[in-house]
Amino acid sequence: MPRQTSRDLRNESRFEVLHALFTLGPSTRQEIAKHTGLSTATVATLVTQFLAEGVLRIATVEQNTVGRPYERLTIDPDRGRILGIDVAETYVDATVYDVTLGPLGHGEVALDEHENDTEYVVNGIVRAIEAAVEASGTERERIIGAGVSMPGQVRPDAGVSVFAPNWDWHDVRIEELLEQRLGISVYVDNPLKAVALSEMWFGVGRVTKSMAVVNLGTGVGAGIAIDGTLLRGSANNAGEWGHTLLQLDGRQCRCGRRGCVEAYLGVHGLEMSLAEIAPKHPALRQPLQRGFVDAVAEGLVADDPALVELARRTSHYLAAALGDLVNLLNIPHITLTGWTTAALADWLIPAVREELPDHVLPGSLPGLAVEASRVPGNPVALGMAAFTLERFLGDLGLASPASTPPPRRRLRAPA
Amino acid sequence: MPRQTSRDLRNESRFEVLHALFTLGPSTRQEIAKHTGLSTATVATLVTQFLAEGVLRIATVEQNTVGRPYERLTIDPDRGRILGIDVAETYVDATVYDVTLGPLGHGEVALDEHENDTEYVVNGIVRAIEAAVEASGTERERIIGAGVSMPGQVRPDAGVSVFAPNWDWHDVRIEELLEQRLGISVYVDNPLKAVALSEMWFGVGRVTKSMAVVNLGTGVGAGIAIDGTLLRGSANNAGEWGHTLLQLDGRQCRCGRRGCVEAYLGVHGLEMSLAEIAPKHPALRQPLQRGFVDAVAEGLVADDPALVELARRTSHYLAAALGDLVNLLNIPHITLTGWTTAALADWLIPAVREELPDHVLPGSLPGLAVEASRVPGNPVALGMAAFTLERFLGDLGLASPASTPPPRRRLRAPA
Ligand SMILES: [Zn+2]
Ligand SMILES: [Zn+2]
Repeated sequence: MPRQTSRDLRNESRFEVLHALFTLGPSTRQEIAKHTGLSTATVATLVTQFLAEGVLRIATVEQNTVGRPYERLTIDPDRGRILGIDVAETYVDATVYDVTLGPLGHGEVALDEHENDTEYVVNGIVRAIEAAVEASGTERERIIGAGVSMPGQVRPDAGVSVFAPNWDWHDVRIEELLEQRLGISVYVDNPLKAVALSEMWFGVGRVTKSMAVVNLGTGVGAGIAIDGTLLRGSANNAGEWGHTLLQLDGRQCRCGRRGCVEAYLGVHGLEMSLAEIAPKHPALRQPLQRGFVDAVAEGLVADDPALVELARRTSHYLAAALGDLVNLLNIPHITLTGWTTAALADWLIPAVREELPDHVLPGSLPGLAVEASRVPGNPVALGMAAFTLERFLGDLGLASPASTPPPRRRLRAPA
Repeated sequence: MPRQTSRDLRNESRFEVLHALFTLGPSTRQEIAKHTGLSTATVATLVTQFLAEGVLRIATVEQNTVGRPYERLTIDPDRGRILGIDVAETYVDATVYDVTLGPLGHGEVALDEHENDTEYVVNGIVRAIEAAVEASGTERERIIGAGVSMPGQVRPDAGVSVFAPNWDWHDVRIEELLEQRLGISVYVDNPLKAVALSEMWFGVGRVTKSMAVVNLGTGVGAGIAIDGTLLRGSANNAGEWGHTLLQLDGRQCRCGRRGCVEAYLGVHGLEMSLAEIAPKHPALRQPLQRGFVDAVAEGLVADDPALVELARRTSHYLAAALGDLVNLLNIPHITLTGWTTAALADWLIPAVREELPDHVLPGSLPGLAVEASRVPGNPVALGMAAFTLERFLGDLGLASPASTPPPRRRLRAPA
């Protein structure tokens, strides 16, 4: 088992000071101490080191009517640039961030989901990155690293796409392929882990250390954090709530099993539900899944009765499936994310809040919250940038306490 | 968030040395160092302290053909006695252990499940403890403490039975009631947490840090450990796998929800399955659940076709429900326990092993093990004794890294 040392503790404190500044924005030493629980003396010492290292800079100096002036500290946003990339079956979405994880520019490339050649996908990723770099006016040599979320099962420690069902990829060394093409350090992970990390850093992680971040889109799944630690499982495969049962021997799921949650709550599941209600409904003629979801949202505004029934059934399925998560894990907070959530939250969330108590054991109900995520932008890209930053800070000797697997190689220092 | 200090690290090391001795039995300093990953110098220092404190003693001194003699160390079993008590709806089972958690004597009292008066239940617990103390010839003043597992939802930090559905108990201060009657420090927890801890200490915890310990009895549930930490949830309510869905809107569960795993895999669920197959089967006339399970086991030996079909359906339900646990948590090891397991393991486990791959995502399948627990005796009583010992060691300044909630009060030192 990995052993923790006094040096790890000091590094954790350093990490927490930086993390507090990401969370709070420009802050005084007192505010950092209060937020982290560290002593003001410890914070003062660490801040002095960070200033000397150029990691932090003084944002403002303020003068109260009494007392001495106090300084607000900030992470130096000019220290480097970080890429966060969300690779899905139908698109690549790349964003350039500064080291405070503020977005600077964005690039998107469509992928043909029937094309499974690795070079085709790598080309798409490279083009999206180039577009984002161009849009943000970033100098390549200032890029610290790129975090790339790949669909399917990923081994971040090996940089490998272990299995991507849509492309039938097995053990593709995607990190190496991308690094050769880009000349940038790359970190790969799974989108469920990325959305969970973005929520831990920039969403409800500010108020709770335990949460499930439930993604509703083509696929469905949950990123889970318990007491501030991301649940990875023994092969980085935890969180496949979309492939837990809603209905034994029920609808065929694309994973091969029958009755999975995803077969009811993934977009194709919604299409199947609507086909049960109104097989000739015009929304079912939309060629793309996003078009279908948008048509459902528009029809709900117009009180289309078949779509109202679809929303009712979908809320019932969602409340039941979230009840399972809560009963098993006794987590206090569920955040919904993904593009189905973005389109249908106004219909799903109130109905789920109303029905959820019927599915949750009394002891796990008090304080239970269900909300749509408020993390801005693409949470997968943001989470991948946060992983890349965590690894970079780790390479500076700042151990991340919770989320990042051990660094595999040194990232390039920014120019 | 709780902060870890250098002192905590030293205490963790002390705890690990003791834990290694529980796991390994009498051991040399070299064996302890190898098992814990601590340096031999650190182990030597800690052992010297423990010997001076009387916590350890030298078990044997051996002489190799070459080199100097070496000592095997052991925890001094005479240092005190610990009680572990399993309180269920129909019985109380109490065991006296020495501080190496070796059993010394046992007492059992039947409870009428229709009697829900707190005094009736407390009397039953006291009588079972008295029988165990008597059977083991224990002097009362040597008892360090008693760990009492209570059915339903328990708050160990407050010593309260928050909700016991069978008795309709709400917020019963059971720890205080028992301490007043017994004059012994009492620690209360939930049976799922206890079986998980007993497995972590004495079962597969010797080879893996992440596991689900699945209890099959009147009720069903899972004690879950992730990376050596017991999953408690925000209200100590995690692990209610028995109240996750197998079948949306399916069989009525005693929790009020429909279609829960327990409604298919609890003993009453097995009875319902058999009633679907052969409504007049003689096993259904058994007045007690244990009689029913024993009749099923006997009938299976005789190849009773209705019972063979019951075993087939039950294995299908169990494989599906375990698949959910694995897909969500990506845990590498499942241990089955409880008295249904004890009676039917020979039929259920081979069938579950065969079907489980149909329910598990490919990435979570390699290395996945499903086994019957090999922890001897009553694992709930043993786990509760282990919690009590962990708290006692914590009061000695030996922080437990994983399982025990913060100590609430000082346990009485042994005489
Ligand atoms: Zn599936
Ligand atoms: Zn139930």
